[in-house]
Amino acid sequence: MPGDLQLSYRATVELSQFDAQPESATEVPAANLPLETLHYLYPSRYCQSDLLVGLANSEFGDLEPGYARVSAICDWIYTKVKYLSGSTDSQTSACDTARERAGVCRDFAHLGIAFCRALNIPARFVSAYAYRLEPADFHACFEAFLGDRWYLFDATRLAPLDGIVRIAIGRDAADVSFGTLFGDVQMQRMNVFVESAEDNSQPDNLQDDSDADRKQTAISISESLVAK
Amino acid sequence: MPGDLQLSYRATVELSQFDAQPESATEVPAANLPLETLHYLYPSRYCQSDLLVGLANSEFGDLEPGYARVSAICDWIYTKVKYLSGSTDSQTSACDTARERAGVCRDFAHLGIAFCRALNIPARFVSAYAYRLEPADFHACFEAFLGDRWYLFDATRLAPLDGIVRIAIGRDAADVSFGTLFGDVQMQRMNVFVESAEDNSQPDNLQDDSDADRKQTAISISESLVAK
Amino acid sequence: MPGDLQLSYRATVELSQFDAQPESATEVPAANLPLETLHYLYPSRYCQSDLLVGLANSEFGDLEPGYARVSAICDWIYTKVKYLSGSTDSQTSACDTARERAGVCRDFAHLGIAFCRALNIPARFVSAYAYRLEPADFHACFEAFLGDRWYLFDATRLAPLDGIVRIAIGRDAADVSFGTLFGDVQMQRMNVFVESAEDNSQPDNLQDDSDADRKQTAISISESLVAK
Amino acid sequence: MPGDLQLSYRATVELSQFDAQPESATEVPAANLPLETLHYLYPSRYCQSDLLVGLANSEFGDLEPGYARVSAICDWIYTKVKYLSGSTDSQTSACDTARERAGVCRDFAHLGIAFCRALNIPARFVSAYAYRLEPADFHACFEAFLGDRWYLFDATRLAPLDGIVRIAIGRDAADVSFGTLFGDVQMQRMNVFVESAEDNSQPDNLQDDSDADRKQTAISISESLVAK
Repeated sequence: MPGDLQLSYRATVELSQFDAQPESATEVPAANLPLETLHYLYPSRYCQSDLLVGLANSEFGDLEPGYARVSAICDWIYTKVKYLSGSTDSQTSACDTARERAGVCRDFAHLGIAFCRALNIPARFVSAYAYRLEPADFHACFEAFLGDRWYLFDATRLAPLDGIVRIAIGRDAADVSFGTLFGDVQMQRMNVFVESAEDNSQPDNLQDDSDADRKQTAISISESLVAK
Repeated sequence: MPGDLQLSYRATVELSQFDAQPESATEVPAANLPLETLHYLYPSRYCQSDLLVGLANSEFGDLEPGYARVSAICDWIYTKVKYLSGSTDSQTSACDTARERAGVCRDFAHLGIAFCRALNIPARFVSAYAYRLEPADFHACFEAFLGDRWYLFDATRLAPLDGIVRIAIGRDAADVSFGTLFGDVQMQRMNVFVESAEDNSQPDNLQDDSDADRKQTAISISESLVAK
Repeated sequence: MPGDLQLSYRATVELSQFDAQPESATEVPAANLPLETLHYLYPSRYCQSDLLVGLANSEFGDLEPGYARVSAICDWIYTKVKYLSGSTDSQTSACDTARERAGVCRDFAHLGIAFCRALNIPARFVSAYAYRLEPADFHACFEAFLGDRWYLFDATRLAPLDGIVRIAIGRDAADVSFGTLFGDVQMQRMNVFVESAEDNSQPDNLQDDSDADRKQTAISISESLVAK
Repeated sequence: MPGDLQLSYRATVELSQFDAQPESATEVPAANLPLETLHYLYPSRYCQSDLLVGLANSEFGDLEPGYARVSAICDWIYTKVKYLSGSTDSQTSACDTARERAGVCRDFAHLGIAFCRALNIPARFVSAYAYRLEPADFHACFEAFLGDRWYLFDATRLAPLDGIVRIAIGRDAADVSFGTLFGDVQMQRMNVFVESAEDNSQPDNLQDDSDADRKQTAISISESLVAK
């Protein structure tokens, strides 16, 4: 029975941000990795890290391990891959992006994740809401496990890291698509919006932070959420 | 510091087997699937179901949904894919096997899983110990979610289904390899063995079951395990 | 210097058609193949026959060699692959089509060629004008070398074989695209038309041939051409 | 009827070498390319230049066109791809090598060719005999069409360019394998040797050329051959 379907979702999110010095975010030997991070070492549908071991080692194998190496991966992607809307589709994988050198945020994240895993760094996909994008929008980035926690990275450099609200984390976009549709569905319209819950000054404050400062800081984000 | 490393693992397993009539094992509409089965609908590294939607629908789309359709998938694989030791490697995926038409148990399982997912049937990889193989050996097969539980399938037809001890389940072999090695390791030797814990007659009894009977029964297996 | 560019091409073609009994069109052992057919045995960009040896042998390896086997390949493609405009692009290859099970005339031809080569039958791509299509249009089909000449096959079953005017032959569409564009070009409009050079009754006569009759005949076509 | 088969082939080759200043070897606009070079612009089985347009433009698109750009391609390959015997097989293509970053002379040549074609530079595969390798051996390299002739390139840097005897040229290794075997054949032994036809001093003279000198010269080679 065909018809209109409208979904709305609202959440109040409290963002808790952990800033670390990059040098404290080190790579962890496989033997010391927490058990729950291991799944994020393995290749997945869109992040075929096993197929990219050669490329990752050729480009990043000789770099100093740690936060700086993951940053170098992001710099490489930012420099070599063109952000180009409509250049990819739902079948595009990290292997494709390494070759086509074009993609969108999802593709940038997949490639970053694949490179990390190829170097034995656990990495996972983040479906996010980037409230400091203008206009605010859905976004995709990734997290790498360094030291004792997950740190956020965004190879697109589009959204300030401290303006990322994680909606879901998974091995890649297959796990955490914004929606998985069964049957014949046509999307008509999507509206996303954000407002500061109590204190308008706080987001502004964040936006005042200079990017230069941020670049020196490793950021880890967690949210506590109340659905309404 | 190079040297020898020896690992041994021993477990006492009590196998609990659930037999159902095939017609009771029906496909479940996506809307009614238990939440924990959803991950097994998505494409994974070795089971790129999104890339095989066309092939799966061309071959199996018109078949009656349910246990019989998954059986037809296994028959197709058994008939069209040659079991050939050494024909594949750790990078071989379901897409490759659909084309190369040769592989080992792992490849048979990956292809079965990918076909199921392409038809919206949750399916997962089973790393197993097949104690009724002669000689008993590690094995790979898969489970599909039908009705209200996971049922076991083995497109290789090598091992009796009621002789399968599941060691691990995952989205594909990337999740549940027998071992993931970091660093430079050479395997020297592997011994696997099994003995009946108390009552020698039980495995024999099982082996007395005629295959013809078994073919009419959908089998679901669970284990309770004591590591020693 | 941007601007309009108009190309027109006109040719008077005399079609010479060779009809043979299918049983006389046999497969030729590699050792007896004419030297100039050998290139059409090798894999090419869109017809990766080396990657499809397993699939081709699994499906067609046991069939009687000869015209009937190539016909069986076309029947398989016609039955299993959906003709779907817009389902593929300029990167789609025979391997993709074997999996996606959808494509257009170019993809049908590529898959037929790849299967033939995988079975050691020389096969080549035909860029054609199908004047008995309604409306008449460009078309792609393929030729296989059997007996002592090239025979025409069209797995799409869209155009009568005796209404095919070959524009170019090559190893696959990479060789004989209708146009290869360098630089930034937008196609505005394409008109194709055909008229009978002298005798209007001849095309009509051809069209009177029943398809049933044609199915029993192996057709080989050559053209002599006067460009105007 | 199984049995031994022995093939021997002997040729007297007179090598004619054309040295040019690199700056005279310029890239030719597509409109000015000789007709017979066009086929070497198109993608082929192992040189899928259409799939590597993004990568080629990202790495080499901003470089000065001409001999120096093709040299830069070779430098890139030499630096980024490991020469590793046994790392590839007969299915390995330029796309694979760009990702795996390992291969043998054939793979180095395929990648160089694919990059050139992606930049609209005609390039072709050279099956060669490298008589100044020690020991002398078969080899693969490639030629790019610049100015008004084909110039030789070898991204492996293994063999001096002026010691290359071309055995065959083609679009890639599919065209000019050293042998294409039909049926079940096992190679037992292969011997290759070379001797100076008249004047022993000539090869020695060549070997005296310093590599430093050679690097400044674009070399084009042709052979006249007498089979014996």
